[in-house]
Amino acid sequence: MTVLILTGEEDVTADMVVVHLNASSVPVVRLDPADLTAGAALSGEYVHGSFRGHLSAGGRLVSMNGLRSVWVRRPGVPAARAPEPSAWLTEEASQALYGMLRGSGARWMNHPDAARRARHKPWQLRLAQRCGLPVPATLITTFPQVAREFAERFPDLVVKPVSGAHPQDPPRAVPASRVAPDTDFAAVAYGPTLLQRRIVKRADIRLTAVGETLLAARKATPADADPDEVDVRFASSATDWLPVEVPPRVAATVRRYLKEAELAYGAFDFAEDADGTWWFLECNQSGQFGFVEVETGLPIARTIAAWLARSAPGEPGHVDDRRTVAP
Amino acid sequence: MTVLILTGEEDVTADMVVVHLNASSVPVVRLDPADLTAGAALSGEYVHGSFRGHLSAGGRLVSMNGLRSVWVRRPGVPAARAPEPSAWLTEEASQALYGMLRGSGARWMNHPDAARRARHKPWQLRLAQRCGLPVPATLITTFPQVAREFAERFPDLVVKPVSGAHPQDPPRAVPASRVAPDTDFAAVAYGPTLLQRRIVKRADIRLTAVGETLLAARKATPADADPDEVDVRFASSATDWLPVEVPPRVAATVRRYLKEAELAYGAFDFAEDADGTWWFLECNQSGQFGFVEVETGLPIARTIAAWLARSAPGEPGHVDDRRTVAP
Repeated sequence: MTVLILTGEEDVTADMVVVHLNASSVPVVRLDPADLTAGAALSGEYVHGSFRGHLSAGGRLVSMNGLRSVWVRRPGVPAARAPEPSAWLTEEASQALYGMLRGSGARWMNHPDAARRARHKPWQLRLAQRCGLPVPATLITTFPQVAREFAERFPDLVVKPVSGAHPQDPPRAVPASRVAPDTDFAAVAYGPTLLQRRIVKRADIRLTAVGETLLAARKATPADADPDEVDVRFASSATDWLPVEVPPRVAATVRRYLKEAELAYGAFDFAEDADGTWWFLECNQSGQFGFVEVETGLPIARTIAAWLARSAPGEPGHVDDRRTVAP
Repeated sequence: MTVLILTGEEDVTADMVVVHLNASSVPVVRLDPADLTAGAALSGEYVHGSFRGHLSAGGRLVSMNGLRSVWVRRPGVPAARAPEPSAWLTEEASQALYGMLRGSGARWMNHPDAARRARHKPWQLRLAQRCGLPVPATLITTFPQVAREFAERFPDLVVKPVSGAHPQDPPRAVPASRVAPDTDFAAVAYGPTLLQRRIVKRADIRLTAVGETLLAARKATPADADPDEVDVRFASSATDWLPVEVPPRVAATVRRYLKEAELAYGAFDFAEDADGTWWFLECNQSGQFGFVEVETGLPIARTIAAWLARSAPGEPGHVDDRRTVAP
């Protein structure tokens, strides 16, 4: 039973995981969908009520029915490196590859449907609420008057993009930033705006969830930190990321979130306040983990390798497209 | 409880359904996501563990928690008609609208996740097999040699696009067409190719499924039909579409398909052979029904209106994003 990793050629984070898979002699095939139809090939046959599929990449042929798991790491755009690339060929190659893999019965980290749904921030907030995670008061609106009233109720706000996407080209992450007290909010009418009560934090938490295993790191906020630096990704690095225990109540709610979201992997960001409460900010289903592992020594890559190597279904992330239908 | 229809302004098929909803006094709000943020507006608030959302369109304000159902008919690209449209604004508006609606608890025709998955033809074929629908022998491949061997086993083949997409711009549908006996298949290496055993048909079947209701039409193949005209959409119209009973065994398998696919609506295409067997060709989750209703008098629009107007969950298409999580 083989582990299939969908990613580009240069991916040192994937390399970190492959090292562990190799050490435990689990067969691995690495395929970049961009290499379809030059370097990678596929075939699937539907005859007499059954399906047999194969993939070929890097000179190796693997049966789709013999896949243990699929790690959707950083796959390229299907057929992007074909001799004559086109939007049409990309669509054909994408449907052929993912359409067949969806029927393979493999476990996914993460399943494409779950991954896509999990990118919706408004959906994340609602799910976090339902699972019992503390969510800072949040408004997403195109009504300036509603934004003004929200700012009266919650005077200390930050503003973030709804999608986490970037208005610039080339792409850049948009930092969350504080809302000035005299903000007028008229511009809210031109695009949905996410306003969120600012958590006065004493630390940032990055919780990396791999199946049932939760690995958390904590970065204390220096006492003299600039309160305008709300986004840890853009803050100065006076303190280090250190491993931290996950409080049992948080662990239970995070596992509930993953189960509902059908995610095998998620990188949760929390803000820890003065009372020690972890406030949910977001869960990135494809969040980076390399920097956390390097800084803290948390065994994230090894845990991912172990998850991918397991052959039993039944945990979060196992969306069973192959479930048997009684005839 | 309101029915929300996501579609453009000019949509006569939606009008057919709205007539029936109006007749039964069900409140309807029509919103084109393209009108965000000029003409349509949205707002959602996450405070103290609960969510309250609103949409405004056509001068009407509707609560997202008070939505009975959402009909994803032909929605425009979010924010496409904004004063300063951009890919970024589209992404923000899309995430805000669909991200909040996903948490509304409304019934969907069809849920975006189910719709997206259902577009994968390879996945359709596998699901149809599992549900017990007869599927003509099919190969999807980039290996010329595999295609040649398949053609030896099944000499009478048709070729179709994998995705149903169109290589031309402006978009045109690609007809399925017969494969000539002397075909070499070398070009298969340049793009995934779908080859399927040709069903010698005596009729085409279009089965429109709306929840549990199945409405089928049949178009007999004239005795003197050109056997090269395999695609009914491009064939000459010597015969009419007529209503036809759905055989009980087909009905059971089609309902199983819809349940597994989590679809509330699907347009199935079958080819009926000389033995009367209905061979599954595809299920289009957004297939047109206007022409069938006009030609046959089948009450499809009325059935869709009734489905949208119902308030009870529990049937195909009800993907419960609001399912309660025990705290």
